[in-house]
Amino acid sequence: MPDKWLVGVDLGGTTTKLAFINTYGEIIEKWEIPTDNSELGKYITVNIAKSIDQKLEELGQIKQNLLGVGMGAPGPVHYETGVILNAVNLGWEDNFPLKDLLEAETSLPAAIDNDANCAALGEMWKGAGNGAKDLVCITLGTGVGGGVIAGGNIVQGVNGAGGEIGHITAIPKGGAPCNCGKTGCLETIASATGIVRLAKEELAKTNASGELKDRLDQNGSLTAKDVYDCARNGDMVAAKVVDEVSFHLGLTLANIANTLNPAKIVLGGGVSKAGDRLLEPVKRYFDQFAFRPVRKSTELALATLGNDAGVIGAAWLVKKHSEHL
Amino acid sequence: MPDKWLVGVDLGGTTTKLAFINTYGEIIEKWEIPTDNSELGKYITVNIAKSIDQKLEELGQIKQNLLGVGMGAPGPVHYETGVILNAVNLGWEDNFPLKDLLEAETSLPAAIDNDANCAALGEMWKGAGNGAKDLVCITLGTGVGGGVIAGGNIVQGVNGAGGEIGHITAIPKGGAPCNCGKTGCLETIASATGIVRLAKEELAKTNASGELKDRLDQNGSLTAKDVYDCARNGDMVAAKVVDEVSFHLGLTLANIANTLNPAKIVLGGGVSKAGDRLLEPVKRYFDQFAFRPVRKSTELALATLGNDAGVIGAAWLVKKHSEHL
Repeated sequence: MPDKWLVGVDLGGTTTKLAFINTYGEIIEKWEIPTDNSELGKYITVNIAKSIDQKLEELGQIKQNLLGVGMGAPGPVHYETGVILNAVNLGWEDNFPLKDLLEAETSLPAAIDNDANCAALGEMWKGAGNGAKDLVCITLGTGVGGGVIAGGNIVQGVNGAGGEIGHITAIPKGGAPCNCGKTGCLETIASATGIVRLAKEELAKTNASGELKDRLDQNGSLTAKDVYDCARNGDMVAAKVVDEVSFHLGLTLANIANTLNPAKIVLGGGVSKAGDRLLEPVKRYFDQFAFRPVRKSTELALATLGNDAGVIGAAWLVKKHSEHL
Repeated sequence: MPDKWLVGVDLGGTTTKLAFINTYGEIIEKWEIPTDNSELGKYITVNIAKSIDQKLEELGQIKQNLLGVGMGAPGPVHYETGVILNAVNLGWEDNFPLKDLLEAETSLPAAIDNDANCAALGEMWKGAGNGAKDLVCITLGTGVGGGVIAGGNIVQGVNGAGGEIGHITAIPKGGAPCNCGKTGCLETIASATGIVRLAKEELAKTNASGELKDRLDQNGSLTAKDVYDCARNGDMVAAKVVDEVSFHLGLTLANIANTLNPAKIVLGGGVSKAGDRLLEPVKRYFDQFAFRPVRKSTELALATLGNDAGVIGAAWLVKKHSEHL
């Protein structure tokens, strides 16, 4: 089917990314539409279907050219039924039957998975995974998401909660509260939000001046990028925060690797734009805490697909799905 | 093939367990032979082959009745080739070609895996797993072993080190040295050896008298059973040790469950003979540290097969293998 296309959709809270992707994982065309969450999400799938039809017309293509549509969605997804179990962040109803609605509106076979899982599949297929079939992907963004791939398949978990790496308890006693109701989750430390929180707490504890303090005073706020930039420039407070984040990430990833010994652990998401300044200190702690045969074989790497990982992984879902039809 | 048998072998450092098992996982006959580790292990497979032939003769059966032989071996195994990568504990040569030798001596198809993985497969097939295809098994014995099953298959890991749960770093700073070269591994806390070490350290720190102190004074040594027995009887030092072990086990298992959300986590090995006195406090910490959807779906359970898990799991290996021939 070399001339047939897959549709990859990455559904975000404010923007929905779409792409036509061939069966070799090459993006033919990509575009975005706003996500309309009004009226409990009732326009979501209609808007996607209309946008696909419109783009086909623009490109002078026909719908028969499309093999199906894959979608990554934020929140826990029941993979077999394609139902979003809990869409509270989106303001939709719980148990939203996304796959059925998408199939009805587009008249195409559909496959849905969690967005972090789609990013992991994308990196496995065309990104840093480089074809590795045993792969863990961790997305460091506003929150911390994860996808675990064993033998080429996503580990969904019995309740769809496989890969919830952001909710690994990193600080068992006295950790910060997490949105999930626990305390000390990795997400409270290694997300962009967590890094900024740690930086502000550290600044509040000290009288030291420095670049990080200056940026906070000037802008009234900080970003994770500020913290990594200032650490690179020698700011001591920023360096301390980077060390704390690296310690917890390195320890957590080493313990995941001690359990699964994957070929690769791929770090993606906005925070990963810090590149080697993120990766190198995490690697040092990883090496300290990984079992020797694991340290010698599990590789840490930066994601390479950036924002395209989601649509490519979503296309992989439907490619796999269509091969089983 | 209801009238054909599988041979399950559980190779231990001092004793080798063997069993004829039908394709429904029912043990027809089980027996043991001493493990002869002399001359770098050269008699291991010959002795197993002879013992199988002898037992067949005793039972008036012929070799054509056997589908193949599966074996669990201590140490890291390269699953495809059936080579034991490192057999330093056994006194054999490294890269010992166990599968090839076993096939040559028995004239039967063979399949080899790590002993902790075989125990996990046994519990999945006929034990506490109750058929669950996503299962983590942890063996609390002299050391701490583990087996991770995803989608019915063992997660071998890229370097054969999948499931090395005993070498998860539980105490990142100031932990006790582990045989693996790291410090603070779960094995240094939750193995029988680790529990006894903690108990002795705790007794040395305190002047308190009590049953645990009395047992140590009387016998000159302690066992993990002593610690659990004394805790049940109200000994404060023993209760403190049990709480520490439970905290680290509960936290580690919760974090594994946050990553994989398996249907079950099964606790086996000698320490698990403490039964609910092991399980209940571990569950309390597990509930504290597990992500809510995981807490509601991943079940902790005690292993049910005892010493038979290894031979039954080994038989499963060769059953699966023979179905692919």
